[in-house]
Amino acid sequence: MTFPSNNTTPTEKKILILGAGRSSTYLIEYLAKQAPEQGWKLTVGDTDLEQAQRKTEMYPHVEAILFNIFDQKQREKQISQTDIVISMLPAVYHIHVARTCIRFGKHLLTASYISPEIKELHKEALKENVLILMEMGLDPGIDHMSAMQVINHLTENGANITSFKSYCGGLVSSESDNNPWGYKFTWNPRNVVIAGQSTVKYMEDGDYKYIPPHQIFARAEQVSVDEFGVLEAYGNRDSLSYREVYGLQNADTIVRGTLRKNGFCKAWQLLVKLGVTDDSYTLENSENMTYHDFVSTFLSNESEESKSIEQRVAEYMGVSESGEEMEKLKWLGIFGDEKIDLANATPAQILQQLLERRWMLAPNDKDMVVMQHQFNYELNGEKKNLVSSLIIKGEDSIHTAMAKAVGLPLAVAAKLIIQGKIDAKGVQIPVWREIYEPVMEELEHLGIQFKEHTETSAGKVSV
Amino acid sequence: MTFPSNNTTPTEKKILILGAGRSSTYLIEYLAKQAPEQGWKLTVGDTDLEQAQRKTEMYPHVEAILFNIFDQKQREKQISQTDIVISMLPAVYHIHVARTCIRFGKHLLTASYISPEIKELHKEALKENVLILMEMGLDPGIDHMSAMQVINHLTENGANITSFKSYCGGLVSSESDNNPWGYKFTWNPRNVVIAGQSTVKYMEDGDYKYIPPHQIFARAEQVSVDEFGVLEAYGNRDSLSYREVYGLQNADTIVRGTLRKNGFCKAWQLLVKLGVTDDSYTLENSENMTYHDFVSTFLSNESEESKSIEQRVAEYMGVSESGEEMEKLKWLGIFGDEKIDLANATPAQILQQLLERRWMLAPNDKDMVVMQHQFNYELNGEKKNLVSSLIIKGEDSIHTAMAKAVGLPLAVAAKLIIQGKIDAKGVQIPVWREIYEPVMEELEHLGIQFKEHTETSAGKVSV
Repeated sequence: MTFPSNNTTPTEKKILILGAGRSSTYLIEYLAKQAPEQGWKLTVGDTDLEQAQRKTEMYPHVEAILFNIFDQKQREKQISQTDIVISMLPAVYHIHVARTCIRFGKHLLTASYISPEIKELHKEALKENVLILMEMGLDPGIDHMSAMQVINHLTENGANITSFKSYCGGLVSSESDNNPWGYKFTWNPRNVVIAGQSTVKYMEDGDYKYIPPHQIFARAEQVSVDEFGVLEAYGNRDSLSYREVYGLQNADTIVRGTLRKNGFCKAWQLLVKLGVTDDSYTLENSENMTYHDFVSTFLSNESEESKSIEQRVAEYMGVSESGEEMEKLKWLGIFGDEKIDLANATPAQILQQLLERRWMLAPNDKDMVVMQHQFNYELNGEKKNLVSSLIIKGEDSIHTAMAKAVGLPLAVAAKLIIQGKIDAKGVQIPVWREIYEPVMEELEHLGIQFKEHTETSAGKVSV
Repeated sequence: MTFPSNNTTPTEKKILILGAGRSSTYLIEYLAKQAPEQGWKLTVGDTDLEQAQRKTEMYPHVEAILFNIFDQKQREKQISQTDIVISMLPAVYHIHVARTCIRFGKHLLTASYISPEIKELHKEALKENVLILMEMGLDPGIDHMSAMQVINHLTENGANITSFKSYCGGLVSSESDNNPWGYKFTWNPRNVVIAGQSTVKYMEDGDYKYIPPHQIFARAEQVSVDEFGVLEAYGNRDSLSYREVYGLQNADTIVRGTLRKNGFCKAWQLLVKLGVTDDSYTLENSENMTYHDFVSTFLSNESEESKSIEQRVAEYMGVSESGEEMEKLKWLGIFGDEKIDLANATPAQILQQLLERRWMLAPNDKDMVVMQHQFNYELNGEKKNLVSSLIIKGEDSIHTAMAKAVGLPLAVAAKLIIQGKIDAKGVQIPVWREIYEPVMEELEHLGIQFKEHTETSAGKVSV
């Protein structure tokens, strides 16, 4: 197959970014600003051409195109003409991009979890001299790189790591925190709504531990992060797989969790218990419902006449009607007469619609990203603990901390690959020094910097 | 394809029963006893030849054979040589039997729910003049037939049915009820353990209602059955589909539930909340665990040193350590040092193994089957309610009420089909008068008889 030649100079390197959504702001900015001096040709594609244009209009040398992943011809044409692809598309589409990239011998970067399908491409990618670099955003991404920096540093100095706990969250900054949940959406709302629907697996003191989905938010734990005081964390799906990936076979405690402001998890647990986070079936007649009707479908009608819906929910949930959890639910308007207007919707979709109205970032809202790793280790007979924390603050609702934390690792890695400073091939995640060392060094220059402190103690770092 | 001819007389009818397990006792007995005078040749196949022999040894004219559903040649040979097949195999295997039956023009009866795959065979079955009669046991089976008898009788008399509630349970009879759960296994233990893992859908006062899986047992309701006083019922998966099947489009309340002795559901809810009924993943290291270890995997280790596991569970569950629910759990031995010895087992499989040790029927234990339909209707301007109840008692652990209630409808229907008294074709369930009327008449002679009472009232039948 042949494609028309393009009119770039033979040494010019070409970068294709797929997806110009909320996480692409800094990714585009970083690469666009350096493109002229580096001699790069940057193209940004999106199914929404205007969105791609909005994100690139200040950079006349960057091309915005309409891009549809399902248009095979276009996919092949665009990928065959570039040198490296960065896919910000929904995770399920990466496999199509990856296959086309391997076919034309182009590198691919994404911020998504490696899927079994993608993993299977490893040998093929090696053969074609292609790098498929997955999990290269924040979480997964910066979490891998920063944890591996500490782990390799400690073990090279002879330490034996006995416990690893790692937490990350996209939160709203204090000055923009003006709702009782202390939360606004800074990334895909759907992923927030359907979080915690698989069993949480972790390890504590050498024991395997499991938390069923309906108890995950009830069992959130407190985590203290210096300048914010106490946050809370609910468990991530599978912490056990990190044991081998990170080389932590000696650690008998491995926990990963997602951070929220204090009080969030108890209130979210009410939504789980009620059943409104379920995404596995659609409701009859949802298009004609109000949110009041929606909540009613999860309650028995008994004693309906005499009690308010708030009373009925509080009694069913076993909480005080005037308590903090119920105040959070009331603030959402989930007991009110707002119309749903979604046909054949799952409970989770209906809840998401409401939350998108309530938890939207205002134009000048500032978000933040918080990450913390806690290590216990033994060195020269002493028990120590090391806490490594990252805080990134956003500037506004477009220049979010989340977009920075997801986009910059991808952008930096792309640059390093083009410059030949990262030479890995095959399907990889950034747990290798060759990848994380130069990327983290550059991220530090960009203000993404962890603070560490170490204590000598037999106890735990955080209470 | 030709098969060897067999040495039966041309008018002799041949019946093949597949599966000689706990539900086949009465099915085999009923057909075996009538076979000589009716001129039937009866064959009973099982993967366990001894089981088939044990169930048939008192009937020398009945043949016991080793039968493996996956042996295609044998399946084709046996089915091609018979006139009617009754499959008591696990529900997932029915499709193979059904396809072979249609191919050779043989009728099939099962006590299992109709699956989408089986449903698709309707036209083909009609074309080949074959009847595939599904849902012909107790629940589904007798529930359909008895409900349709009442529904057709009421509507023919001009009644407008406004509410239908239907409950059924396999329970242990009072004289054999010697454990705190008031429960022993009378059918497939696995189905008991994984019950209630899908959203319950029902209708109440015209509103669609949904109960998430983790709340099903918490929301069990009380049902009074004359001679037993108060039982409790947890909701069945999908009551809404019965609205159309039963022609109850005017009913604005439709509920179906499973009966248990009082107190069962609250204690079972603790198992659900703990996570031990989950069947979606396997535990690491289960083969080396005790039941104490098993429960520990669902608890955080914090404060482990100072508290017993019973205390920790009771606190986590929010119940009294000496309360009835915890007494039921303690009686199971789930906090004890009994070994599990199951490798790569799911939580549900591990729980099932324990329950099979505890809830086994002793040889002389008597079980019972309880079914109750509650109808509200309007007739000549009056509001009335009708309660129709069935109680069947078992004789011992082989001659169970459950085996009678599941096996006799199949046996009777098979007889009526052979005699030409049921002439339906295609894929059917017994909601048609042509089927249920002669079957229910014969079941009455066999002691399976509903008692009805009607009251004139504006209220509800049961509290």
